[in-house]
Amino acid sequence: MSWTFKRVAVVGSGAIGLYYGGRLALGGEDVSFLARSDVDALTTAGLRVDSAHGNFHLPKVKAFPTAAEIGPVDLVLVSWKATSNAHLSEVLPPLLHAGTQVLTLQNGLGNCEVIAEIVGADRVLGGLCFVCINRLASGHVAHTAGGRVAIGEWRQADGRAEEIMRRFKTAGIPAEAVPNLEQAQWEKLVWNVPFNGLSVALGGVTTDVLLAAAETEARIRDLMREVISAARVLGLPLADGLIDFNIDRTRPMGAYRTSSMIDFTEGREVEVGPIWEEPLRRAKAAGLPMPHLTRLVEEIRARMARRDKAACGNR
Amino acid sequence: MSWTFKRVAVVGSGAIGLYYGGRLALGGEDVSFLARSDVDALTTAGLRVDSAHGNFHLPKVKAFPTAAEIGPVDLVLVSWKATSNAHLSEVLPPLLHAGTQVLTLQNGLGNCEVIAEIVGADRVLGGLCFVCINRLASGHVAHTAGGRVAIGEWRQADGRAEEIMRRFKTAGIPAEAVPNLEQAQWEKLVWNVPFNGLSVALGGVTTDVLLAAAETEARIRDLMREVISAARVLGLPLADGLIDFNIDRTRPMGAYRTSSMIDFTEGREVEVGPIWEEPLRRAKAAGLPMPHLTRLVEEIRARMARRDKAACGNR
Repeated sequence: MSWTFKRVAVVGSGAIGLYYGGRLALGGEDVSFLARSDVDALTTAGLRVDSAHGNFHLPKVKAFPTAAEIGPVDLVLVSWKATSNAHLSEVLPPLLHAGTQVLTLQNGLGNCEVIAEIVGADRVLGGLCFVCINRLASGHVAHTAGGRVAIGEWRQADGRAEEIMRRFKTAGIPAEAVPNLEQAQWEKLVWNVPFNGLSVALGGVTTDVLLAAAETEARIRDLMREVISAARVLGLPLADGLIDFNIDRTRPMGAYRTSSMIDFTEGREVEVGPIWEEPLRRAKAAGLPMPHLTRLVEEIRARMARRDKAACGNR
Repeated sequence: MSWTFKRVAVVGSGAIGLYYGGRLALGGEDVSFLARSDVDALTTAGLRVDSAHGNFHLPKVKAFPTAAEIGPVDLVLVSWKATSNAHLSEVLPPLLHAGTQVLTLQNGLGNCEVIAEIVGADRVLGGLCFVCINRLASGHVAHTAGGRVAIGEWRQADGRAEEIMRRFKTAGIPAEAVPNLEQAQWEKLVWNVPFNGLSVALGGVTTDVLLAAAETEARIRDLMREVISAARVLGLPLADGLIDFNIDRTRPMGAYRTSSMIDFTEGREVEVGPIWEEPLRRAKAAGLPMPHLTRLVEEIRARMARRDKAACGNR
């Protein structure tokens, strides 16, 4: 059951609200504007946008002076200045039904929190607008540059990770709380994919052996680059510096046996799914081929099959 | 109402489970281990950890062969190999009460998803372990290096941002869905804090004027550096490259009037809270002083007070 929307309400008919609401209306969406002084101008003369991406005029615009006259919608865009946010507690409730989502296009921090107090945290989104717009007059907007919107679902850490972190620290375990678990998972894969992977693919070798040969160090770097690229395609901004960082911290570890190497040499199952197959699957689904990881997965599978066949023969 | 925990269960008594569960027990936490072949050894001889951070021995360890014998706990650590995850659907339910949280310490991707299927998405966390540990024998673990755990609450995007993005794009609006809204908000502040801020603080000036003087460009860079540092303290890895990127993209904008400058010159309220005060408050709460932003906020407040006083006098 995936959410979608038909009716849209725009709260605040300043430059941002008129521009984005106007674009959506131009594209055929059902948009109602909550306006103050502009209601008459919008209703009678419509909305005029002088835009760097092409001027347009909407002769008919649905504009209302109160939220009650708009009634429940599926998506609310909050686009007035944050300085008006004290009025959201009156304006939002008439616009809500059980599935209504609220997207704030406002600047800065703290707006999602205000909206979440009114509508509940699980239906708040934020949009960052990278755009140059000015409202010239009632129902008349000038758009001079940009226009991109970056939209994200708002979810606030609720302190569970921090509480576990504190108690781990109390027990002497170095711990930190991270705001984006998925990004932390991919950052860790930058190490696990090449080192755990090659330690198995090459038949059970320690990390110092992998780093001693120029050829395997080059494969490590290629795999790391692929993992970083995959994370980026998924919207997780991993830094290039992770490559040198991870190689530099591995050298002093000496003849380290990765956990997968230990599993391999002790005849246990290796975590092929989570460490190699799942990242590969997600990258491919996002349109990124990963030739180095593809080759590595094939080598690991072949090596596991050979080991298990040998183990059978030895019984 | 903030969540906390008393009873802890460790699912999987391999190296990771014994080490972290052992550290927690050593620190006084109430820890029960779900074990297989190790139950007798753990119960009779306890747990021995040879650790780079100091050896320790727990003579008494609570170890059980079934989850039912452990019963409901407040926190479950899942520490066995992902290759055993098919058994989680039997093992987790006896460990749950309404408030139980489940933290997976496993490698790779896809483990949170498996656990969420069983216990619900809103009580899953992931922990990334940066540690070198081997299990030498039953109840005996060697810890050679590291130990840090990065803990995050698991929350999966549910497609609302993607749906809005698609419909915005259909309407001709360049849009993207971002996985971490908070990070995107801070990235935008790298521009808004200095450019909107100085455009008001200096009495209503356009961006080209701010970039024309070496002194104001230096202030812009100082403010950007502070915003990036604040985001990093909050766990959001903003790149240094954002400084040049934002300055380079602003030069071609010419005599651009920031939205705050327009508000200022037209006598309207300026969004002092979300753009400057709230980032400053969050950075300070995290222990980071921001002298450049502190000065800027004072200048903006003084400039607003002077304007409003003048406006009163003109009435």
